[in-house]
Amino acid sequence: MKFWDRENKRVYLDWAAATPLLPEAKVAMLPFLENDFGNPGAIHQEGVIAKRAVEGARDEVARSLQVRPEFVTFTSGGTEANNLAIIGTVMNLRAKKHEFHDMEVITTHIEHPSVLRTMDELVRRGVTVKYVPVDEKGRIIISDLRELVSSKTILVTCSYANSEIGIIQPLHAIRKVLKQAEEKFSTKIYFHVDAAQAPLWLNCQFSSIGADYVSLDSAKCCGPKGVGLLVRSNRAELKSVEFGGGQESGLRPGTENVSGIVGAGKAILWAQEDWKDRSENVSKIRDEGIEYILKTIPTAVLNGEEGDDRIANNINISIAGIDTEFATVVLDKNGFAVSTKSACAGAGGGESTVVKAISGDPARALSTLRFTLGPDTTFEQIKKMTDVLKEHCDKIQKYPVK
Amino acid sequence: MKFWDRENKRVYLDWAAATPLLPEAKVAMLPFLENDFGNPGAIHQEGVIAKRAVEGARDEVARSLQVRPEFVTFTSGGTEANNLAIIGTVMNLRAKKHEFHDMEVITTHIEHPSVLRTMDELVRRGVTVKYVPVDEKGRIIISDLRELVSSKTILVTCSYANSEIGIIQPLHAIRKVLKQAEEKFSTKIYFHVDAAQAPLWLNCQFSSIGADYVSLDSAKCCGPKGVGLLVRSNRAELKSVEFGGGQESGLRPGTENVSGIVGAGKAILWAQEDWKDRSENVSKIRDEGIEYILKTIPTAVLNGEEGDDRIANNINISIAGIDTEFATVVLDKNGFAVSTKSACAGAGGGESTVVKAISGDPARALSTLRFTLGPDTTFEQIKKMTDVLKEHCDKIQKYPVK
Repeated sequence: MKFWDRENKRVYLDWAAATPLLPEAKVAMLPFLENDFGNPGAIHQEGVIAKRAVEGARDEVARSLQVRPEFVTFTSGGTEANNLAIIGTVMNLRAKKHEFHDMEVITTHIEHPSVLRTMDELVRRGVTVKYVPVDEKGRIIISDLRELVSSKTILVTCSYANSEIGIIQPLHAIRKVLKQAEEKFSTKIYFHVDAAQAPLWLNCQFSSIGADYVSLDSAKCCGPKGVGLLVRSNRAELKSVEFGGGQESGLRPGTENVSGIVGAGKAILWAQEDWKDRSENVSKIRDEGIEYILKTIPTAVLNGEEGDDRIANNINISIAGIDTEFATVVLDKNGFAVSTKSACAGAGGGESTVVKAISGDPARALSTLRFTLGPDTTFEQIKKMTDVLKEHCDKIQKYPVK
Repeated sequence: MKFWDRENKRVYLDWAAATPLLPEAKVAMLPFLENDFGNPGAIHQEGVIAKRAVEGARDEVARSLQVRPEFVTFTSGGTEANNLAIIGTVMNLRAKKHEFHDMEVITTHIEHPSVLRTMDELVRRGVTVKYVPVDEKGRIIISDLRELVSSKTILVTCSYANSEIGIIQPLHAIRKVLKQAEEKFSTKIYFHVDAAQAPLWLNCQFSSIGADYVSLDSAKCCGPKGVGLLVRSNRAELKSVEFGGGQESGLRPGTENVSGIVGAGKAILWAQEDWKDRSENVSKIRDEGIEYILKTIPTAVLNGEEGDDRIANNINISIAGIDTEFATVVLDKNGFAVSTKSACAGAGGGESTVVKAISGDPARALSTLRFTLGPDTTFEQIKKMTDVLKEHCDKIQKYPVK
């Protein structure tokens, strides 16, 4: 039995929201929840043990992502990593006397709330934020990006794989546009990629992503909650978003969460070791599942791309007219944990801003269901879940709400 | 054997930097590092279990500190809680069209780096920061505070007990000055207290502290690292410092660190249940210890106050001319974990800004040693440590460094 196979035989299809903790990660964390409680900032033995653990985890992450350890900053989660990359870049330029109104940041309307709400904050500070259009699958339109980029553009930020619809962005094409623009304008345009959903399913080697900043979240790849990290290129420069002690090279103050950091190191290492096989196996289940769902529930439509440009474990559908919060509860009662959208976008009802942006269709955006698979999810499980959902749809068809 | 009694018989005298994890806290955390890995933002069973755990911890903290649960915000540590209280207050007023240059914040020169560096940030934004003088024991001079407070003062921030020299600030006298000023100027002056060092040794009931904001750090009171909290009054209003999902009533975005929060709840409850007896017992050891140190090492002087206005577990001395980093290493080798100053103020050498501020004496500030006791520290342990330190002092006396 794998560690994510809960004894009570629930079928957990919300891996994009939370993942079980890797047992090796837990084992590695335990000493730091027991005898080894020192503060890494102290120079005595207890401190040295803690410091060594933090730096060991940093080395593991660095090896796994193929970067230098000093370019790995531990944060309290993916949200904080995104905030640090975005606000940190802007405030670093501000400290160098760039005016806010001379800065432009480009993103999309389908990013995670930790990016979208940070954009709102940039606008409050006077920065111009431009939203590059995405196509009906959620993919950034490269020709539109090329037109948007200007001599004022300082940062472009997007997800590696979208947390709701799973579209994998064309990072290399984006990078190419930015490089060309940098040459044309003789400027620096930093590129930030939110890769929170990626480590279990996609290659996260830093050079392969090709960004200046990559955000990760331990809790999305079988590490503990409360730990994220920001990896940066050697040309990247940041100011911290919070202020205090000089921990994490001055980029992230506060006593290090030693046990969490140790667990995060193990999880990222494990996730990346095997992403390719894991991805190949699960994408087959995903595709069979999508086919079965669309066949069984004729009113269902798939949101996002099909095939290789969709993250291996994501299925996202809309079923016109259904109350998806109700459907989620019915599925839950029948043993299936699924979600309507991103957990950070609010637990319950309300439309998906992502599906609204790609479809322009409020009804479709209101009726989304997301199934995010784990490494051992079977087609049989998706099939059973679909049958329960189908039955529910038929039932509400007979007794429609006003 | 108590849980902080390490088997290898080390004498750990750095409780202000880090504390062992309460076993009950660990036990309570474990399910959330195992089967109960759900995201509290999800509405299925896994999510509900996680959400209930977070809210249960919030209830425990609220009961312990005697506030309403909705006024407790979990953060990633004490540093973040301080940032949130201070920057959050300023940015809330800014959102209401107050200009930065119309805002004044008052603090002291002896605060923790997470307050002092946040003050630097406020100054960068255009806020005026005033430093109220402290006396030679580190105590805020109330008459000076009365003169500093003006119609522009929006926030006063200080520690409950100083993390280096242990002085307990006269919070009620401060509150009184602020109330009078509020009446005189018809303004609101928020009062923030950094109580990170307090829960094990001082009454932390919210009404007893009498502030609008109280910061706590789980890791300083036998809870896990990576969790802090900010408790606020019903008149307090904040903007968040980071941006993302609506977690923690919109004040602190990002998936909740469920296991950490659960552990923090247990730790704070436990710390506060017994603070009085614990404090009475340890302060006796502290006083005997201080007496023995000053008698044994004639060149040693005590930094900070004596008696009841000193936190129960803090001893801080200066020994003219010694290299305290070297002394720390020698003591470490002999089994004693001590520190030179606050771990957040940098691990090794360099002067203590706190002792510099109270003494005006750079030599004294360069030669500080801090011993922070635990609930079971004995006089015998302090005595042995002192004898080792005395021997070291005698040795370096014979071979003085140039």
